[in-house]
Amino acid sequence: MATSTRTDRSNLVPFSSRLKEGKALAQDVWSIFAAANLPADCINLGQGYMNFAPPKWVTKAAEEALNSVAPNHYSHPRGRIRLREAIKAFYGPQLNRDLDVESEILVTSGANEGQYSVFTAFLEQGDEVIMFEPFFDQYLPSVTFNGGKPVYVPLHPPKDSKLKSSSNEWAIDFDELRRAITPRTKMIIVNTPHNPVGKVFTKQELEGIASIAEEFNLLVMSDEVYDCLVFDGKEHVRIANLPGMWDRTVTVCSAGKAFAATGWRIGWLIAPAYIIQPTLAASTRIVFCSNSPLQEAAATGLEQAKERKFFETQLAEYAERRQILCDAFDQLGLKYTMPEGSYFILLDISKVKFPDDYPFPQSVLGRGRDFRACWFIAVEVGVSSIPVSEFYCEEHANIGEAYARFAFCKDVDTLKAAVERLYRLKDYIEA
Amino acid sequence: MATSTRTDRSNLVPFSSRLKEGKALAQDVWSIFAAANLPADCINLGQGYMNFAPPKWVTKAAEEALNSVAPNHYSHPRGRIRLREAIKAFYGPQLNRDLDVESEILVTSGANEGQYSVFTAFLEQGDEVIMFEPFFDQYLPSVTFNGGKPVYVPLHPPKDSKLKSSSNEWAIDFDELRRAITPRTKMIIVNTPHNPVGKVFTKQELEGIASIAEEFNLLVMSDEVYDCLVFDGKEHVRIANLPGMWDRTVTVCSAGKAFAATGWRIGWLIAPAYIIQPTLAASTRIVFCSNSPLQEAAATGLEQAKERKFFETQLAEYAERRQILCDAFDQLGLKYTMPEGSYFILLDISKVKFPDDYPFPQSVLGRGRDFRACWFIAVEVGVSSIPVSEFYCEEHANIGEAYARFAFCKDVDTLKAAVERLYRLKDYIEA
Ligand SMILES: Cc1ncc(COP(=O)(O)O)c(C=O)c1O
Ligand SMILES: Cc1ncc(COP(=O)(O)O)c(C=O)c1O
Repeated sequence: MATSTRTDRSNLVPFSSRLKEGKALAQDVWSIFAAANLPADCINLGQGYMNFAPPKWVTKAAEEALNSVAPNHYSHPRGRIRLREAIKAFYGPQLNRDLDVESEILVTSGANEGQYSVFTAFLEQGDEVIMFEPFFDQYLPSVTFNGGKPVYVPLHPPKDSKLKSSSNEWAIDFDELRRAITPRTKMIIVNTPHNPVGKVFTKQELEGIASIAEEFNLLVMSDEVYDCLVFDGKEHVRIANLPGMWDRTVTVCSAGKAFAATGWRIGWLIAPAYIIQPTLAASTRIVFCSNSPLQEAAATGLEQAKERKFFETQLAEYAERRQILCDAFDQLGLKYTMPEGSYFILLDISKVKFPDDYPFPQSVLGRGRDFRACWFIAVEVGVSSIPVSEFYCEEHANIGEAYARFAFCKDVDTLKAAVERLYRLKDYIEA
Repeated sequence: MATSTRTDRSNLVPFSSRLKEGKALAQDVWSIFAAANLPADCINLGQGYMNFAPPKWVTKAAEEALNSVAPNHYSHPRGRIRLREAIKAFYGPQLNRDLDVESEILVTSGANEGQYSVFTAFLEQGDEVIMFEPFFDQYLPSVTFNGGKPVYVPLHPPKDSKLKSSSNEWAIDFDELRRAITPRTKMIIVNTPHNPVGKVFTKQELEGIASIAEEFNLLVMSDEVYDCLVFDGKEHVRIANLPGMWDRTVTVCSAGKAFAATGWRIGWLIAPAYIIQPTLAASTRIVFCSNSPLQEAAATGLEQAKERKFFETQLAEYAERRQILCDAFDQLGLKYTMPEGSYFILLDISKVKFPDDYPFPQSVLGRGRDFRACWFIAVEVGVSSIPVSEFYCEEHANIGEAYARFAFCKDVDTLKAAVERLYRLKDYIEA
């Protein structure tokens, strides 16, 4: 059987130049810190997915769908009507709107494909998209693949030296934001609760962003995939709810985050018809429709969540998980950012020492110090995390270098075991 | 609660100009002939999905996945390793290759997203993509969204007047194909078995295409989603198997077609590493990964198909379904194309008469005669089909106007009921 490929590679059909931008072909942080590259027994607090299953009553609904006929076949590209009705019933009151299931809701193949489709639908070659750093790493290539140009505005980390700061101390410099606007600015991405900072944007901050969006006629992509994970009674403000903002905002949600089912690839967009219509045209070509059985399951999730107090219970569980990590960081005396939302904690690793001649793999050399620190912690201590400089543009990468991102979307036993190991970091902390 | 949207629409953020091409925002044939627009009891032979469920033993595997942990979470963007291994084992022998699961196989969210990702990965602004008409309608906007320019080469229908012709009489004019090549030609799409003609391209035809692809250094996208539906012992030739062609071919497959699960959105691409690598980069940004539980199910499907003689049995069932429609068309004395593959039959409807002043909706007026004929048949007779001019460019639409596409991916009872109704066409056939 043949295994060899052509030896003369001079004549290969070349790939598109759009892949030359936006780190599209570079080795990304996820493959560098993939489980396969780390010690076999390393505890994975790097990747942001759960090590537990979705709720049984939601999976049960998927099974029912699998055992019928229509929910195994193509759905309407807008999404199954039952799920759109469930989205309307769940989010309508929160948005204070009587949402139109035919024109204001679009089911997508994960939040990710929804966001990609918005970029496809709205970006013109050279259009600029503002994103706050650190940013969810998919934004960058998703924008450049569609001809857009990312423009970066950093969230500024707290400067004081207290051990435990709050994610809301990561601050927007509004003058800086304003200076980032050009005649080509088309869109601004807001991510609240924020990955990886855990920041829940305040009403005041969102009002500041809103007024700039209005002034310069920008679309706002509000990535709220962690909307069910806002801790300590803090209010999650939806920018679409601010005066005038419904008209220019697309709100992005994810069944994967809401129902501990990241592999189901169901998300949804809520926006006015003039945003949904071209986005639907894009999504219809990109995926045609999203998978049907898990749309039925997500519908059940939204339909029954209230009565089952599901999100309240889930939130309490996540708060407990967060506490386990925070207690450990407190004990270690390492600085960290206490997240108000999402399931990530940023640990300041600038005081974690490691030998310069440690046997690092090529993939982490020549990257930020955080890549080496995270590698060292994974190998020496046995807990993996993600270096945060990956979520910054090159120019600002030094801000991210101080941090490692730990995900606490793991069961309590795993987190406790991780914490036992993390105590061993004591030996490597600078005075 | 708010329901109104802004009244001043002058200042809306405009959608991307890429949506102005390729019929992206036009009302497509699927929404015109959607069940909701037709009489409630109309039998749907229009849409190409099954009215039966996937095999129980495959759905069972999905349920098992749902009841574990990891298969509910993100998969590797390349696809779950179990599915990639199953693809290797199933297709490797057919392609006479020891496929590399790490670099030569990519799982996608349906064949559709796989094809879109290839266009994203390879098309440069202005690159030309050759497609044979009639073409699967998604190709056109998927190409233009990625900056490509579709170039159309018609398959020529048989000219003689016999009632029953074979799909293999739809012929390529190789001079015409050659004339379609320009310095900007990057790719050629081959679809075998063909939707909607049912044509299974012969080895000789594929050799003709292959030699042109080699001569002009073109990528070949071989859309073989109906590869398990080739009737009457006819051979399905894979163009990737022709000498030299592995190196420039991406073969496209669909679990939806193979396992009667069009709504599962799982497909896969098989190609050399230099094609898969940039396509993976595109797909990773577009969807990140495909849904996990149904990947596990598709893996089971491929793993057990041989031992269960699944594809043999399924093929016999489809052959029976095909016969039911053909018998009816024979009896009616209407010309049709007997398909060698896929689950579509083209019925020549040029002799079906309908009153010019029939109360047609606006959506079918101003389109080809076939739009009106299909509407008339759906409303008067109660069986829906799809007008074939939709699958041609404007310039060649008149070729398609003679045909309606009937899908026979429906259970025997439904097809028999449809046939009873179709006999009523007798009253409307020109002498
Ligand atoms: C901020 C943010 N947006 C979007 C996504 C993508 O969500 P989904 O899995 O629904 O595609 C993620 C996933 O990690 C995320 O963190
Ligand atoms: C020729 C052809 N290619 C591709 C597809 C898309 O397949 P999937 O449902 O796997 O996306 C179809 C579906 O009808 C088709 O007919």
